Amino acid sequence: MTVHRHFDKELSLLKEKLLTMASLAESMIHKAVKSLMERNQGLSEQVNAEEKKLNLLEIEIDDLCLKLLALKQPMAKDLRLITSAMRIDSELERIGDMAVNITQSVAVLIKQPQLKPYIDIPRMADLAQKVVRDSLDSFIKQDVKLARSVLARDDEIDALKDQIFRELLTFMISDPSSIQRALELILISRHLERIGDHATNIAENVIYLVQGKDIRHHIEEVEPRRHR
Amino acid sequence: MTVHRHFDKELSLLKEKLLTMASLAESMIHKAVKSLMERNQGLSEQVNAEEKKLNLLEIEIDDLCLKLLALKQPMAKDLRLITSAMRIDSELERIGDMAVNITQSVAVLIKQPQLKPYIDIPRMADLAQKVVRDSLDSFIKQDVKLARSVLARDDEIDALKDQIFRELLTFMISDPSSIQRALELILISRHLERIGDHATNIAENVIYLVQGKDIRHHIEEVEPRRHR
Repeated sequence: MTVHRHFDKELSLLKEKLLTMASLAESMIHKAVKSLMERNQGLSEQVNAEEKKLNLLEIEIDDLCLKLLALKQPMAKDLRLITSAMRIDSELERIGDMAVNITQSVAVLIKQPQLKPYIDIPRMADLAQKVVRDSLDSFIKQDVKLARSVLARDDEIDALKDQIFRELLTFMISDPSSIQRALELILISRHLERIGDHATNIAENVIYLVQGKDIRHHIEEVEPRRHR
Repeated sequence: MTVHRHFDKELSLLKEKLLTMASLAESMIHKAVKSLMERNQGLSEQVNAEEKKLNLLEIEIDDLCLKLLALKQPMAKDLRLITSAMRIDSELERIGDMAVNITQSVAVLIKQPQLKPYIDIPRMADLAQKVVRDSLDSFIKQDVKLARSVLARDDEIDALKDQIFRELLTFMISDPSSIQRALELILISRHLERIGDHATNIAENVIYLVQGKDIRHHIEEVEPRRHR
């Protein structure tokens, strides 16, 4: 009894740490894009500082998972929960990397005049933040419906990325002086798209965890998903 | 005694399956870039077919790992070996995704006249294949030195990516009709670079596995590594 109660406490701690990671990742996406919108280098620096915290959390969570696996020897569902947590923390860490990558493009962009009003990029960023949050919530609540909604919204993010690409291509062709800035904006849209892919990976993991079937590759009616 | 021998046999099977995944991933990189060089769409189709095999192998390996964790309740080193295998198969699967992404750019490129002779892209592809193979070999042989050499060569791949970017930027600026092809070549170089990043992740995992210390983030003298 005491052993079980202790184990439950450690699982709660694990979930709490994953939620902290997700909040941090969300905040990094928000600040990275705000840094572009407000041409504010200081916000980019905050993102870089936060990445270090995110990395430490990943290590803490992995250590906790290994400890739980070794000491508690969990079976079935708990085992899958813990191995999922080890995958999810690595997805969240990569989301942080993408936010840092965005700040690198922002650094180039805010040294030059703004190419165009930014409309689709903040929309993509909002969507990206929401799917990150919802993918984690779906894990915590074991909510397959919410996890599936992440998959659907990732398709919207992909469509925005394609739209941004086409628009910037016409900018580049009509005005070669816009090429470098357009390229950086294309890169930002791709980083945001990859954030959506990482949230999708988390959501697919949740569906697997709850339903015990693997939807990562073709097994269901969903289109095969790739990390583009 | 028999239990141990059986466990060793299952660990060997696990390693074998990971090596099969790595060979397949290598072959996909090779064919994707050969498809560009030889303007041969058929090779791209082979890559797409091979991705399905890679995905199935990932699921098989995950299932085997979960089975080993649940039934054998391994301790310490074996536990870390198995959780590492679950990370490594997912890196290899993503390497396959990158090869598929390359074929998507190739499909666009081979419909148009070749923009320039390709020199750096096949060099990047060779390097990428080698780091994939060596990262897996370092896992199988538990060879930290080999794992560290992967980290060093990933820096070469990154440098080539920057060189390709700069060169293609000048193409785009001097000739707007080159923009679309140049963009696709930039994307290919980024996919190859990400393959290097995935191999780096595998190598870092090996160093952690052997030395029991986490070098993923700052803990050693190495530069923090990101998934760009």
